[in-house]
Amino acid sequence: MSYTLYLSGEIHTDWREQIKQGISEHDLDIEVLEPITDHDASDNIGCAILGSEQSNFWKDHKAAKINALRTNSYISRSDIVVVRFGDQYKQWNAAFDAGIATGMGIPIIVMHAPELTHPLKEIDATALAVTETPQQVVEILQYISQ
Amino acid sequence: MSYTLYLSGEIHTDWREQIKQGISEHDLDIEVLEPITDHDASDNIGCAILGSEQSNFWKDHKAAKINALRTNSYISRSDIVVVRFGDQYKQWNAAFDAGIATGMGIPIIVMHAPELTHPLKEIDATALAVTETPQQVVEILQYISQ
Amino acid sequence: MSYTLYLSGEIHTDWREQIKQGISEHDLDIEVLEPITDHDASDNIGCAILGSEQSNFWKDHKAAKINALRTNSYISRSDIVVVRFGDQYKQWNAAFDAGIATGMGIPIIVMHAPELTHPLKEIDATALAVTETPQQVVEILQYISQ
Amino acid sequence: MSYTLYLSGEIHTDWREQIKQGISEHDLDIEVLEPITDHDASDNIGCAILGSEQSNFWKDHKAAKINALRTNSYISRSDIVVVRFGDQYKQWNAAFDAGIATGMGIPIIVMHAPELTHPLKEIDATALAVTETPQQVVEILQYISQ
Amino acid sequence: MSYTLYLSGEIHTDWREQIKQGISEHDLDIEVLEPITDHDASDNIGCAILGSEQSNFWKDHKAAKINALRTNSYISRSDIVVVRFGDQYKQWNAAFDAGIATGMGIPIIVMHAPELTHPLKEIDATALAVTETPQQVVEILQYISQ
Amino acid sequence: MSYTLYLSGEIHTDWREQIKQGISEHDLDIEVLEPITDHDASDNIGCAILGSEQSNFWKDHKAAKINALRTNSYISRSDIVVVRFGDQYKQWNAAFDAGIATGMGIPIIVMHAPELTHPLKEIDATALAVTETPQQVVEILQYISQ
Amino acid sequence: MSYTLYLSGEIHTDWREQIKQGISEHDLDIEVLEPITDHDASDNIGCAILGSEQSNFWKDHKAAKINALRTNSYISRSDIVVVRFGDQYKQWNAAFDAGIATGMGIPIIVMHAPELTHPLKEIDATALAVTETPQQVVEILQYISQ
Amino acid sequence: MSYTLYLSGEIHTDWREQIKQGISEHDLDIEVLEPITDHDASDNIGCAILGSEQSNFWKDHKAAKINALRTNSYISRSDIVVVRFGDQYKQWNAAFDAGIATGMGIPIIVMHAPELTHPLKEIDATALAVTETPQQVVEILQYISQ
Repeated sequence: MSYTLYLSGEIHTDWREQIKQGISEHDLDIEVLEPITDHDASDNIGCAILGSEQSNFWKDHKAAKINALRTNSYISRSDIVVVRFGDQYKQWNAAFDAGIATGMGIPIIVMHAPELTHPLKEIDATALAVTETPQQVVEILQYISQ
Repeated sequence: MSYTLYLSGEIHTDWREQIKQGISEHDLDIEVLEPITDHDASDNIGCAILGSEQSNFWKDHKAAKINALRTNSYISRSDIVVVRFGDQYKQWNAAFDAGIATGMGIPIIVMHAPELTHPLKEIDATALAVTETPQQVVEILQYISQ
Repeated sequence: MSYTLYLSGEIHTDWREQIKQGISEHDLDIEVLEPITDHDASDNIGCAILGSEQSNFWKDHKAAKINALRTNSYISRSDIVVVRFGDQYKQWNAAFDAGIATGMGIPIIVMHAPELTHPLKEIDATALAVTETPQQVVEILQYISQ
Repeated sequence: MSYTLYLSGEIHTDWREQIKQGISEHDLDIEVLEPITDHDASDNIGCAILGSEQSNFWKDHKAAKINALRTNSYISRSDIVVVRFGDQYKQWNAAFDAGIATGMGIPIIVMHAPELTHPLKEIDATALAVTETPQQVVEILQYISQ
Repeated sequence: MSYTLYLSGEIHTDWREQIKQGISEHDLDIEVLEPITDHDASDNIGCAILGSEQSNFWKDHKAAKINALRTNSYISRSDIVVVRFGDQYKQWNAAFDAGIATGMGIPIIVMHAPELTHPLKEIDATALAVTETPQQVVEILQYISQ
Repeated sequence: MSYTLYLSGEIHTDWREQIKQGISEHDLDIEVLEPITDHDASDNIGCAILGSEQSNFWKDHKAAKINALRTNSYISRSDIVVVRFGDQYKQWNAAFDAGIATGMGIPIIVMHAPELTHPLKEIDATALAVTETPQQVVEILQYISQ
Repeated sequence: MSYTLYLSGEIHTDWREQIKQGISEHDLDIEVLEPITDHDASDNIGCAILGSEQSNFWKDHKAAKINALRTNSYISRSDIVVVRFGDQYKQWNAAFDAGIATGMGIPIIVMHAPELTHPLKEIDATALAVTETPQQVVEILQYISQ
Repeated sequence: MSYTLYLSGEIHTDWREQIKQGISEHDLDIEVLEPITDHDASDNIGCAILGSEQSNFWKDHKAAKINALRTNSYISRSDIVVVRFGDQYKQWNAAFDAGIATGMGIPIIVMHAPELTHPLKEIDATALAVTETPQQVVEILQYISQ
């Protein structure tokens, strides 16, 4: 039976493509959902559609809410949420997504380099798998899909 | 009628004390819940009670789970979760708590300096109030408690 | 056994006082929750605490969210929500509260003059009692509390 | 992945048609649900099927309940509820629908003219987007569907 | 959009056939679910599969539980439950089904002769439509499906 | 730790008094909730408070809804619902209450004479105890309260 | 209408094959979900994908969590969970699955030899059918699918 | 703030007393709930109150259901469920309780000797703490209660 997977977090490397390619290569029955990963579009969408703002706070606010229409809807219909933390930026939205999934009772898989273990310990402790590479995620998906 | 408040996030300044003092001064009927804020105790509690581990990953893992017994229980019985972001450290657990509350349908108040607006935009957009100081939180509590 | 009652809607007549007086006279074990009914305070609270805004939209936005901290928390812990519609103003927030209670599975009692029957038919059809006066609400509370 | 959209509120302009046309033109994978928008049919359906009533109250009552069979079922299976407020009539049923969606945890998009901002502030504050035109709704749908 | 309908209650007249025929004639997109309506099979299925019992109590018990595997599963995935009361037998299982649907938040349509109004008042008061004939149910389905 | 008990069903014998007396004699920490058991008051309360109706249907309707304010609220906060079926009347409201409790996931204890076993088999199969006398209910309460 | 069935428990006999064959022979519209039943793969999958561990505890831990990604997801989307207990091993995971389904409100069918009745009494008492053979499960599925 | 704790599982050693004594010695604000731990009373209670049965299956069945009135009610209102596995007997009811708590989203602490790690791996992997002694449980409670 199929799974629905949401890929949350870091948008500067091609980890989503690697997971999608692995799913395709192994012909797994898995639907992949993602946020908008175009950074500029995602930042500017609020004012682009709903009109400009003088303060950056409200500009961000309007953008974040439109993105939430997609993000929260996608998380809520997922069987598993994969959250990747990279080595740059604050990435609080990734941790926030991990929390939303947890609060909804949806299991998470985390992906990050070992040096991030300590600050991610609460999220790792909740995850059903702590991975380092997209290949490991694909192997897990392959295993649970057989 | 009373509120139950959970104070999540940054543990290096006295913001929790300021909020508790404000609640006390205004004689508000508000119960305050907090995580263990002793950083060393919180980091070491897993191995201290359940036995030592060779890897830091499992040491962190055991500690984080014991802390979750308190944290998740407290968040789930709160009416409002206040989450404060400071200017140091990754603070992914604060964002994770904000997400857990959101996933459970519990409203949040965020507290942070204006320069953190952009990386916190998703959390701010979900919050029912975005504050900068403990005094503002106390004023909100005073207003909704009259 | 006691009930918790939330009194939503019109704030320009003394209907809340009449209900509270009736509860008191009949010595009913009923806890009464209410929104902030000081119109000016309620409108201005956002900017008063969190800083001024140039646009009325954001001024209203910040105020409405702080009020929601109280309102939604109170509705969610009520056994019954009483919603009164008067003869002035748009009163969309009253209808919105009636909807929130309904979406949460909390029963409502409606109070309004007969000439409002047609535009309120969807809300009346959901209510467990459609009343015209505070006295009728008190009689219902007295009956279900014996 | 597809969205299910419920279009609630004002029935005297062609805003629903404009949104549906935009969805069609951009070939978006969005299912659109609507109430019965034939005003007379909607008002009379209770007595038409279940027998006449002498009082308008019960006539309205029976009609509103049959309409609720459709409306509440449609709202509950939607990912997003769009609620439009026009410049005429009480429109309490639109605000009631917005509340029902909110009580169920379903996000809303609001559409109204700027002069309605103040009386709609509670609903706007809950919405993930406050729009003025069907085109803006279509742009949001296009953005979150890419 | 389609509805799923569960037809509960009286099994001695052809009301289910009439509703299904009406759905078919009007080409409505409605899936119809029903209990096992073969009275003897339904009474004996427990002992037939799981072995005989000396007491009628346990014979009934085993049968009722196997029927509940179907009934409760079907009720829980329905959008609307239609419950018909006839003029014979205790029919407590029909009232029980109406209660299960109500406890799950699923709306009901009731069908019964007018002389049963008084003993059915609690169920009628919960129903979104109180009908007397299968034709009325079909008309409602036709109306909400247009 | 205490239990909250709702006593639903037959109102013509003193079974509620016997259970309450047994709870009192054994000094059990059990809160007992009940419907209004004054038959005439319960039948007439709708018109008595909200105004008279020409048809018995709407008279019953208004009364049943006011009673539901108490009944459904009490059932929803109970740990156990006891439902007694007597040897007279239709008693569909008792079966309806049993269903509501079941739909909400609240366990039931049934009380009835053995000759009602067959028509009550669906309700008995759901119950955690099928009793014949108030004394048996008291013995169960005594056992689970030790 | 179709059912989704999860087959939990004992993995050393061919009971799953017998049920699937019966479903196939009777052409039942039933989707069958199962855990990974390859014992070695299931035990070693954690270290195989995520890296080796020195202690058996963490080896088991990582494997169990990856298996839970599949197991809990499958249980949560099932209409019925069948749990079989064999005559060997501790089989606590089977009892744990039965509890998870029960906690989620999903009905269970139990399958075991009569000599296990006493230690399984709590699980049997919750089950909607207590069977001894795959044939009985197939007969139940056949009956509820007609 | 206080916790409510349910102590499930093995009834042949004094581990419950040790935990309760530790709670008392450290003056922790923790309410402790337990099943009936009198083995004979627990086995015979069904027939003792509700009448004898010829088959052991139904004797066990009636007893298990009365015990479930207490057990499931207590688990559902707990913040934490402690489940202890001893070295004797099948103990499927302990694993079943762990599952029920998990299905309800209530965290568990497990207590067992290290040699039971492998057969308990699924339950351990879900637990927020895996302990071996009552003292460890008391230390955890002391830590999260400070």
